[in-house]
Amino acid sequence: MPWLRNFIQLSAAVLSKRQRPATSTLGAPPGPTVQLLKHFSAEVGAEKPPGLGPTKRTEKPRVVVLGSGWAGCRLIKDIDTTIYDVVCVSPRNHMVFTPLLASTCVGTLEFRSVAEPIGRIQPAISREPGSYFFLANCTGIDFRNHQISCQTVTEGANAIDPWNFKLAYDKLVIASGAQASTFGIKGANEYATFLREVHHAQAIRRKLLLNLMLSDVPGVSDEEKRRLLHCVVVGGGPTGVEFSGELSDFIQKDVHQRYAHVKDYIQVTLVEANEILSSFDDRLRKYAIKQLTKSGVHLVRGLVRDVEADKIILNDDTSIPYGVLVWSTGVGPSPFVTSLDIPKSPGGRIGIDEWLRIPSEEDAFAIGDCSGFLESVGKPVLPALAQVAERQGKYLAGLLNRVGKSGGGHAEGAKEMDLGDGFVYKHQGSMATIGRYKALVDLRQSKEGRGVSMAGFVSFFVWRSAYLTRVISWRNRFYVLTNWLTTLIFGRDISRI
Amino acid sequence: MPWLRNFIQLSAAVLSKRQRPATSTLGAPPGPTVQLLKHFSAEVGAEKPPGLGPTKRTEKPRVVVLGSGWAGCRLIKDIDTTIYDVVCVSPRNHMVFTPLLASTCVGTLEFRSVAEPIGRIQPAISREPGSYFFLANCTGIDFRNHQISCQTVTEGANAIDPWNFKLAYDKLVIASGAQASTFGIKGANEYATFLREVHHAQAIRRKLLLNLMLSDVPGVSDEEKRRLLHCVVVGGGPTGVEFSGELSDFIQKDVHQRYAHVKDYIQVTLVEANEILSSFDDRLRKYAIKQLTKSGVHLVRGLVRDVEADKIILNDDTSIPYGVLVWSTGVGPSPFVTSLDIPKSPGGRIGIDEWLRIPSEEDAFAIGDCSGFLESVGKPVLPALAQVAERQGKYLAGLLNRVGKSGGGHAEGAKEMDLGDGFVYKHQGSMATIGRYKALVDLRQSKEGRGVSMAGFVSFFVWRSAYLTRVISWRNRFYVLTNWLTTLIFGRDISRI
Repeated sequence: MPWLRNFIQLSAAVLSKRQRPATSTLGAPPGPTVQLLKHFSAEVGAEKPPGLGPTKRTEKPRVVVLGSGWAGCRLIKDIDTTIYDVVCVSPRNHMVFTPLLASTCVGTLEFRSVAEPIGRIQPAISREPGSYFFLANCTGIDFRNHQISCQTVTEGANAIDPWNFKLAYDKLVIASGAQASTFGIKGANEYATFLREVHHAQAIRRKLLLNLMLSDVPGVSDEEKRRLLHCVVVGGGPTGVEFSGELSDFIQKDVHQRYAHVKDYIQVTLVEANEILSSFDDRLRKYAIKQLTKSGVHLVRGLVRDVEADKIILNDDTSIPYGVLVWSTGVGPSPFVTSLDIPKSPGGRIGIDEWLRIPSEEDAFAIGDCSGFLESVGKPVLPALAQVAERQGKYLAGLLNRVGKSGGGHAEGAKEMDLGDGFVYKHQGSMATIGRYKALVDLRQSKEGRGVSMAGFVSFFVWRSAYLTRVISWRNRFYVLTNWLTTLIFGRDISRI
Repeated sequence: MPWLRNFIQLSAAVLSKRQRPATSTLGAPPGPTVQLLKHFSAEVGAEKPPGLGPTKRTEKPRVVVLGSGWAGCRLIKDIDTTIYDVVCVSPRNHMVFTPLLASTCVGTLEFRSVAEPIGRIQPAISREPGSYFFLANCTGIDFRNHQISCQTVTEGANAIDPWNFKLAYDKLVIASGAQASTFGIKGANEYATFLREVHHAQAIRRKLLLNLMLSDVPGVSDEEKRRLLHCVVVGGGPTGVEFSGELSDFIQKDVHQRYAHVKDYIQVTLVEANEILSSFDDRLRKYAIKQLTKSGVHLVRGLVRDVEADKIILNDDTSIPYGVLVWSTGVGPSPFVTSLDIPKSPGGRIGIDEWLRIPSEEDAFAIGDCSGFLESVGKPVLPALAQVAERQGKYLAGLLNRVGKSGGGHAEGAKEMDLGDGFVYKHQGSMATIGRYKALVDLRQSKEGRGVSMAGFVSFFVWRSAYLTRVISWRNRFYVLTNWLTTLIFGRDISRI
C-alpha cells in the first residue's frame, strides 16, 4: 500500500497546516489555501484567493452559470460543450422539478424522483477537464474584470470552514432565482415552511408524520390534537392549491386507513387574501373551489397579520391554530440580486433587454425569476414561472451557441455581433392539480385570450402526461411513473425517515 | 365552516393553557395534560400522568412491545390480533431492513426501499381501537404492577415538549435492541457515523457527496483532497465489509464517470483489529480479502486508540486522516437495558430462559439483541444477528398466541400453563456481499459444521434473492427490484438531497 504509507507520512505535516481560523472573513484570502494545485494557481497570484483565471484565446471560452433551477439547467443542457466549457455555481447539486414537489410531501412521489443531478443534465460537467460544478454561493461580481467571487457551502457537524475563490468568465449567466416573499410578516420566516426545495418538502413531511403520531399518544387533549393536525396553507396560487389538494387526498385515502384513531381531527385550511388561482379562467376557478371544498379543504379569505409558533393571526383578529404551516405567497428578489449595483426592472429584479443581456455590462446575462425586462424595453416583466425560466434558458443557450460558432465566445468577443431576434414569450397555458384525480388545464395564451380550458379527470391525465414528458431524464420519468403506479396500488408510504 | 368557527373560538383558551414548562422533568406529571381525553383518563387519577390503564377481563388482553427492529416487528406481524390488542412503543415508526442499509449510502437503493412502516407490518395497529403505535421511549418498567413509563419523542425547531405517560400491559415484550459499541474510544461517538439506522445512512451519503463536491472546488490542496475523499471503515464484520464493497463499487463505476476530476483521490480503507469476517469459512475469507484488495479497498490491521475530527490514531501511533468515518465494531447493551434491575446474561443483556421469559418477573419477555440466555439455562448467549432476532420474534408470537387461545392472555393468567418446547436456534448460514457482483454464502450451521459454502457471482444472486424474499411487503420487494434494475441500467443516483 504505497499510497497509504505516503499519505500517512504526509498527514502529520498537512494536518498541522490545515487548521483554519474558526471564522473566515468574506473576501479575505484564506491562509493555508494559498499552496494551491498548479492547475488552479497558474493565473492567480499567491496572495489572492484561489480560483480559475481568464481563459486563453487558444482555450475554449468559459460560460459561468449561477444557479441550478429551471433557467440555468435548461441552458446548461442545451449549451454546446464542444464550443464552451461550462462552470455551474450553485448551493445545490441538482435541479428540483418544482411542479411535482407538493406530491413528495405526502409520499405520492419519492424525493429522489423530482430531483435531477446537474451531472445527469450535462455530462460534460463531470467529464470535461475545463467544466465544473462548484457547490458554492456567488458573493459578488466584478463585471469590469469579468470575474466573480464565490464562497463554498459546507454544512453539518464537524464541517470544514467555507472558503472563498474567484472565477473568471467569458460569458456570465445569472440564473440564481428569487426567494419566497413573506411581505415582512413577523414570524413567517421563523415558523412557516416554504415549498421550493426538496428539503422543504422533507421538513413538511417529517412534521406532518410526527404530528400524526404524537396526536395518537395518551396525554394530548382534544384541542391540542386538532391543532397538531391542522394543516394551514397560506397562499392560493397553484403551489398552495396543489399542496392542499394532495394533502386532502392523503387524508381521505391514507390517513383514514392508517391513522384511524385520529382521522376525525385532521383538517386542511387554505388562506388567501384575494382569489385562489387568480391566473385561471373563471369557470376553472369555480370548479376548483367546488372540488376543494368537496374534498374537505376549508377556504378562508383573509390577510395574515402575524405568525406565532402555534397560530396565525389574520387582519380581522381571527386566530387560526396550526400544527403544520406552509407558506406560498409568491416570490421576490433575493438579497444577492438586490446587492448588485446595476439597473433593475420594475419589482427589483435584474434589468435585462430583449436579448436577456444586462445592457450596462459586457458578456453578462440574466434569466429566470431573478431577471425582468427593463422599463426601457417596453415589455411587461414576465411572471415568475418555470415555463418562462425554461424558455429563457433555451433561448439563451441558442444565442450563446451562435455567438460561439461565429468566434465570439471569449470575453469582449461579441461586441459588434448581430444577436438575431430577441426573446419572445408565448404562454403555453397553465395547469394545476386539485387532488382526487382532478386537474385544471388552461391552454389560453392570456387571461383574455381564446383557447381550450378544461377541468376534471381527463385534465388530470393531461396534467400527468405533460409533467411526465418534461421530467428531464429517462431514469426520473421511469421513477415518477413507478411511484404513481405503486401509490395507486399500495397507497402512499408513511415511514418517517 | 362550523368546525373552524368553533375551533377558532376555542383556541384562545386552549393556547393559553398549552404553555408547558421549557424543561419537563422526567417522571413528573406534566401540568396541563391532566385534562385528558375520556378514553385515556378513565382509569388513571387526575394527578397521575396520562396513559392506558389495565384491561378488563371482558376486553382483549394487551401486548406491549418495546422496539421496532427485527425481533419486535416479526412478533407484531405474527401476533393474533383477534386475541390481543398490540401496542408498540418505539422511537421510530418503521423497521429498517438492516442487511441492505449499506447499499443506500451510495445510492444503489433508495432509503424508503429498506424501511417498512409498522402500520404496514401489522395493519391492526392503525385500525383496531385498542391497538396503537406510540412514538416514544420507555423510561422505566414497574414489573410488579404490570406498568411501564414512557416519554414521547419530539424533534425539530419549534417542537412541542416531550411528555410522559404510562401503559399497563398484560404481556410485555422487550425488543429494544442493542447499541453500537465504541469500547470507550475517545471521539468515536462524536466523529464517527454508525450504520444502524436510515438516518445514519443518510448522514454518510450526504457527507460523501459533500466531500466529493468540495474536493472539486478551487482552493483545496492535494493533501486535503485526499483526506476529504478518504473513507475509513472501522470493523471488519459483515456490515463493514459490505459497506467497503459497496463503496469501492460506487467509486469504480460512478465516481470514475461522474466525478472525473477527483477520481484519483478517492480511497477506501478498512481497519480491523483481528480478522475480517471472522465468522466465515477460511476459504471464503481469503476470497473476500482477494476481491476487496482487487477492487481497491486497503485492508489495515490495527486497533484504533483515538478518534479526532479529521484522523484516527492506531495503537502503533499510525495516524490515518479521513473525510468519512464509519464505525461498525459490533454492539453492546443499551443504557436502558443496563438500567433495568433484573438478572443479566453474560455480556450484560437482559437474562432470559428457554421460553424467552424474564424468569424473575411474571408476563415479561425479552427477545433480540437486548436479550441473552441466563447462565443457569446452560446455553451460550446467541449472537446479535437479524436472523436470531427474527426467529425469536416468530417463536414468541406463537407462544403468546397459544397462551391467549387457552385463555391465559391477561396479566397473571398464564402462571400454571404449559408453554410447550423452549426456543431452539438453528443457524441457517451467513451471507455477505463484497461488491463487484460478488458475495459470500456460508450455509454451514456452525464454524466447525459441514455444509455448503460458496463465493462469487452465483452467490451474489443467491444473496440478492434471499434478501428480496425477506423484505416484508410486496411494495418494498417491488421497489428494491426496481432500484437494483435502475442502478444496473442508469447507474446510481447522486443528487444530494
